[in-house]
This record gives sequence, C-alpha cells and structure tokens, in this order.
Amino acid sequence: MRIKDLPAHVGEKVTIDGWLYNKRTSGKLQFPIVRDGSGYLQTVVFKKEVSEETWKASDEATQESSVRVTGVVRAEERAPGGVEVGVETFEILSLAAEYPITPKEHGTAFLMDHRHLWLRSSKQHAVLRVRNELEKACRDFFYDRDFVLIDSPILTANAAEGTSTLFETDYFGEKAYLSQSGQLYLEPAAAAFGKVYCFGPTFRAEKSKTRRHLMEFWMIEPEVAFLEFEGLQQLAEEFVEYLVGRAMDRCKEELKTLERDLSKLENVQRPFPRISYRDAIELLAGKGMDVKFGDDIGGDEETVIANSFDRPVIITKYPTAIKAFYMQPDPNDPDVVLGMDMIAPEGYGEIIGGSQRIHDHDLLLERIKQHNLPVEKFQWYLDVRKYGSFPHSGFGMGIERVVAWVSGVPHLRETIPYPRMLNRIYP
Amino acid sequence: MRIKDLPAHVGEKVTIDGWLYNKRTSGKLQFPIVRDGSGYLQTVVFKKEVSEETWKASDEATQESSVRVTGVVRAEERAPGGVEVGVETFEILSLAAEYPITPKEHGTAFLMDHRHLWLRSSKQHAVLRVRNELEKACRDFFYDRDFVLIDSPILTANAAEGTSTLFETDYFGEKAYLSQSGQLYLEPAAAAFGKVYCFGPTFRAEKSKTRRHLMEFWMIEPEVAFLEFEGLQQLAEEFVEYLVGRAMDRCKEELKTLERDLSKLENVQRPFPRISYRDAIELLAGKGMDVKFGDDIGGDEETVIANSFDRPVIITKYPTAIKAFYMQPDPNDPDVVLGMDMIAPEGYGEIIGGSQRIHDHDLLLERIKQHNLPVEKFQWYLDVRKYGSFPHSGFGMGIERVVAWVSGVPHLRETIPYPRMLNRIYP
Repeated sequence: MRIKDLPAHVGEKVTIDGWLYNKRTSGKLQFPIVRDGSGYLQTVVFKKEVSEETWKASDEATQESSVRVTGVVRAEERAPGGVEVGVETFEILSLAAEYPITPKEHGTAFLMDHRHLWLRSSKQHAVLRVRNELEKACRDFFYDRDFVLIDSPILTANAAEGTSTLFETDYFGEKAYLSQSGQLYLEPAAAAFGKVYCFGPTFRAEKSKTRRHLMEFWMIEPEVAFLEFEGLQQLAEEFVEYLVGRAMDRCKEELKTLERDLSKLENVQRPFPRISYRDAIELLAGKGMDVKFGDDIGGDEETVIANSFDRPVIITKYPTAIKAFYMQPDPNDPDVVLGMDMIAPEGYGEIIGGSQRIHDHDLLLERIKQHNLPVEKFQWYLDVRKYGSFPHSGFGMGIERVVAWVSGVPHLRETIPYPRMLNRIYP
Repeated sequence: MRIKDLPAHVGEKVTIDGWLYNKRTSGKLQFPIVRDGSGYLQTVVFKKEVSEETWKASDEATQESSVRVTGVVRAEERAPGGVEVGVETFEILSLAAEYPITPKEHGTAFLMDHRHLWLRSSKQHAVLRVRNELEKACRDFFYDRDFVLIDSPILTANAAEGTSTLFETDYFGEKAYLSQSGQLYLEPAAAAFGKVYCFGPTFRAEKSKTRRHLMEFWMIEPEVAFLEFEGLQQLAEEFVEYLVGRAMDRCKEELKTLERDLSKLENVQRPFPRISYRDAIELLAGKGMDVKFGDDIGGDEETVIANSFDRPVIITKYPTAIKAFYMQPDPNDPDVVLGMDMIAPEGYGEIIGGSQRIHDHDLLLERIKQHNLPVEKFQWYLDVRKYGSFPHSGFGMGIERVVAWVSGVPHLRETIPYPRMLNRIYP
C-alpha cells in the first residue's frame, strides 16, 4: 500500500513502508510523519494503545530512518492528504545515523555534495515530479500526433559548430564527440517517417557557470517534413501550451509545495505574441539598451523583451550572420533567416530555438563551405537534399529550462536529478 | 492530410506531399505508389483525364523524388490501406538523382553506409515504428504505475566495473566515463520516490562484433524500494507481457510487413517458466554441454535453455562469483545471489538482467573492497545504506534486443536509427 492511495481505504488496516520525515511529540502522543515517495502521512502513536516496543521505536526513530507502520486509516482533514493512521505497531527497519540534511539552512555546495540525499527533501521531490510529468507530457504530445521517436546517436563523428565546446572521446582510434543536438540525424529520418522527434541527453563543454547552463541536459527536438516557418511557430505554441496545462492539471500538490504563482502559468494560452528580431532591437533601443542589428540577444535583453508580455514570446527572423548554417533565408529579406526563439516569461530565458531548414542542395553546400565545415563529413546530410528534397522545419527545447520555469525555481541545478556543472561530476 | 487518414475521407479531394516509392505503368495508365511516412498510397493517373504536364511529371518522377499529388480518394480494396487516389494533378517538387538503394539486393556494408537513406525502406521503417511503439509502451507502463523518471547522468566519475570497456572523456581536467548503467544513481532516488526508472543511452567500448552488441544502446532500468526478489521477477514478467501485447495490438501493419510469426508472440503470457542457475547447469549438462557450477551462461547456452520453453524463461540465483558486487546473497544458499536474467525465445538471448541489491552497509562495503573498487568514489552509494536502509530491487532491459525479438530481425543494427558498432560511427 502506498500513501497516496490511502484516502480510498479509510477504516481499513494498512501497512506502510517508508522513512521518518518529521516528528511531533506531546506527552503521551507522538505524531511521526512518514513519507514513502508517493506522499506524506501523519501517524498517531497513543502510548496507552500500543506496546512498549512500538512506543520506544517511535520515540527513538531518527530523521530518515526506514520504518514500517501498521494501523487503521482514518479521515483527518487537517492532515496532509486528508487521512492519518492510528498506529498499532511501529517498527524501525534501519535506524538512520545522523542525517546530514536537517531542517536548518544549508549552503548550496553542501547540498550539491549530498545531492543523492537532497533528492528526499520536499522541494527537490516536487521539482523532479514536475520534471517527470513534463517529460511524459512531451512523449504523449508527439506520440499522439504520430511523430516517430528517433533516438539520435550520442557518439558522433560530425562537429557541426566546431569542436571547442564538445566533449571528445576515442572511438576505436577515431575521434568522436558527444552530441549537442540530434537535428542533423532527424532530417533524413523525417524523409522516412514524415514527422519525427528525439529526446535525449545533449552535452556542452562550456566553461560557463551561469544558473541557466548545465554541461549535460535533456533536449527534445521535433522535425517535420513539408512544414514551413508559420507552421513551425504554431507547433511550438501548441506544444508549450500543452505542457504547462499538463503540469497545472496533474502537479497541483507539487506546485503548491513550490509555492508557484499559478496565475502566471494560467496566462500561457495561444496565440503567443510574436516579434521580429528587427522590432525587438527597436524595442530594446527604445528602452535605452545599446543594441543594433547583428548583435546577439543575450539573457538580459531576453528578460527585457519577455517582461513586455504576459506569456511566452516568439522572436523571429534573426540575422543570417548570427545563426546556424542550415537555416533557411527569408525570401523577402535575405539578411535574416526563418529562425525563431521562444522566450519564457519571468526571466527564465530562451526555452525553444528552431527554424525552417535550407532544402536547396547547392545553397546548403555553399553555407557548409562558408562556415569552414568539412564537406565530406556532411555528405550524408547533403543527401537529404539530393534525393527528393522537401521543405522542413524543427526546433529544440531544453527540458530543464521548462521545468525551472514551470516550477518557479531559478537555478537549473535543481531541475535534473544529478546535475553536471563546471567542476561538478559527483555524485 | 496524411496517407493513414485517407480511409476516413473517401469521396473527398485531397493533397498529399510525399515521395515516390514505386511505379507501375500500363499504356495510358500510371500507378505511382507514394509514401509519406504514415503509409503507402496507390495513385492512378489516367492520361485522358489529366493535363499533359501532370502526365509528364508522373512519367518522369524517379524513385524517391518528392511529389505533391491532388485528387479524389476512392475505395479500392486491392490497394494498400483500402483506398486509392484518382489523380487530378501530379507535381514533382524535387527530382531525385539516381537513388542508390534500389529494389535489388545490396550488401550490408553498403546499406549501413547509406543508413540515412536506408531508413526509408519498408522493412527498416517497420522495425523503427515497432521501436517507437515499444519505447512509448515502456514509458506508459512505468508512468501508469507511479514510477518517477530519473534521468541518470551519462557523464560519471564512477567506474563500477573497471574502466576497460568504458568510453573516457576529459571533464575540465578530471577523467569522466560514459555511463553503462543508471542503477547506482537510481538507488538513492528510490529512497526519495519509492519507485523510479531511467531510460537513456548507455555505452560499452567492447571490441566485439556480434549481432547482439552495439557500442551505444538504450536501456530502461526500474528500481523499487522495499521490493524483494519474488516481486522483482513478477514485475519483469508483467512488463514484458505488456510490451509484447502493445506491439501486437498497435503494430499489426508493421509486423505483417516484417512477416513476423505472431503465434510465437501470442505465447508470451504470464507466468513465465523459472529455472535456477543450478538446474540450468544440469539441463545443459544433460544435453551434453560442458558446463559446471561457476561458469558463465553464454549465448549458445542461453539458446539451448530458451529452446526448452515456448515463452521467455527466467534464470535465477547465479553464483556470487560471476555476478556484480551489489547483488544480495541468497540467505538459504550463500554461494548464489538473488539475481535473475530473462532469456527471450527463438535465440534472441538475454533481454533482462536484475537483482535484489545488498542493503546491509557493512556487507556492501566488504564487497566493494573485494572487487578492488575505490571506496571513496562509492561513499554516496554507501550512504543509501546508512540513512534508513531498505531492501530494494531492480533490473535493466536493453530495448534493442526486445525490438529485435518482437520484430523478428536477427541483428541489432537494424533496431536503432543510427547504429554505433565496431569501426562504424558514420553516418
């Protein structure tokens, strides 16, 4: 029996295995709070009604000791979950030595060193349950729309954007790199299945220490044959609206634990505002920021733009010069590409980046050469344009940023079970 | 509009974007078969009823050219999907140069070099759709049972079983290894969530060239707090029965394309036969094989055992000496551990390996030392036994082997979009 199922068993005798989360005592009564990963349960030990052994066990149980509790479920509206258990027997399965994470405040480094235990804390627990829900929502969204999952390879011989931010390994005598994106592998698969996506770990060996970056993070990337730029933006909007709705619908308890302001999430309804890069630059200049056409839109600028709207905003048509080699030029404005970024509200930054892809073979070849990429390693990628080319579009979304935004936690390190950061690969 | 949706649109005029799969001609009639990733569509071009342009385009379209076809859907029971389209206009979007994969036979090396195009072939298409279904079924199975997804890290500082089969990379001056299993990271998470699983890529740098191995493959690993050995076997059985049922239910077309003998799959019903390692050795010796207690059960032996049963078989209680350091000893027979492998029928080999884990701190510490593992790197793992230890169990299942078995393809290289094998990291 799990704690979350107890409300359907009022009046029944049950046994719960779990860990001691907390305890209140008042003379002849003890109130051990037990957690089992599915919820928190108030148990009541009344000295007069239990054996000496049970009273002693309940008394001696320390924080995070594993315990087995048997008793009768009864309604108690003031208890978490609306039920409590009147204890008949309370048994310590394994007494916890002094548990290092106590209700007092701890420094981040200490908590990160104890990440394997910190996962048990209620806030971390809630964030990772939100992650679990959002990841499943991603899978459901694309599966329900007949996208085929294409697990793109992690070990790759290509280095699409230069090798400086890539983790390298030896592959039986050849150099191999850990993937930063599955996109190149998805495009040929889109010709086979029409609609595809990948969702796996990606890697960036960047010496950055910001709260918005991890060395290892999970990215979901759809790619759709015959989809053009307008349709791409609609897909991204529909996807994000769906994700936020799922979390609000199925993570009520978790968002409450996290004290998330739900009114902000309720705003996330289509259509999202859209602004071209050219207009974004004007908006920023109008606010006194020193930016001009051709500049990158960094984190600070993103926040200023995001703060002008009450829901995610899509920035479109970036300068060709600052975007990836494979992006389709805008036929009406060849200095910009049919690329888009979606910026989350409340300062959570870019959550989606995508584009229509170049489908003309010769233009793509020219771009590969302009970017000094090794043509022979991209032959297979060029083949997609040689054998029945087709317009197509796709985007990538880092799940950690969406988890951070939906949960309302400012730092990505709390959005993944075992974060990999600069100088942190333990535990 | 996608091809698979056409049966609901008989009598309507539709436009399909796709690729030319094949073509028959008979005088004034052409029958281009178009595929769009969702299905195959017979189209009918009647010279008298179309423009000269359309006739010419249909005539000149080569295999894998991308095309746009407009016409009226009509029922035609002899056509794939039960419908065909009477063409009004047929347009070549991009003419394919001589497509390298023709209906004639090609060698494996050639096909693997063209994996990015080979994905378009009907058999590869079917196998990867089965993979897509099985992976989603894995996610649904554990989500529906309130398991929390814990994405375990790929970059790890631990090397649980020695470094000889690990891919290594530099992590900002430290040595890091690509993960071979998420298990060690799941066990602490099981203390936080009760029931957890991971499902991601894993890596083995083994110089082996068998049809049953890949360097990079996807593994799903559940881990459950308070679950003991008997429950573990039941979970594995229930899971595999569910997966096979899902494929039979939702991949009918694909399994037909693959000419899979469904009667073999229909047998996959619980309970599965179980045989102890000791009895398996006797069975093998009885068949004249030269094996004794303490020997590994290799691929050939597995097949002999599997052939004695009509559904997957679970082999239990292997010798302690040949199994991993963390497996719980059998209290009634300390020379063996509470570990299990599940062997698929028809020679597809081991699909699941799992065990109850040691939950006694001192015994685990002793085993870590016996295996010459660096104790300081396992401190966090030992912590799980220090702070409220609990019996727990889990298993790992490589999805490629299950896809191979369910699809009936003998070689793992066809079960993953871009296989990584010895000397193969392209495309």
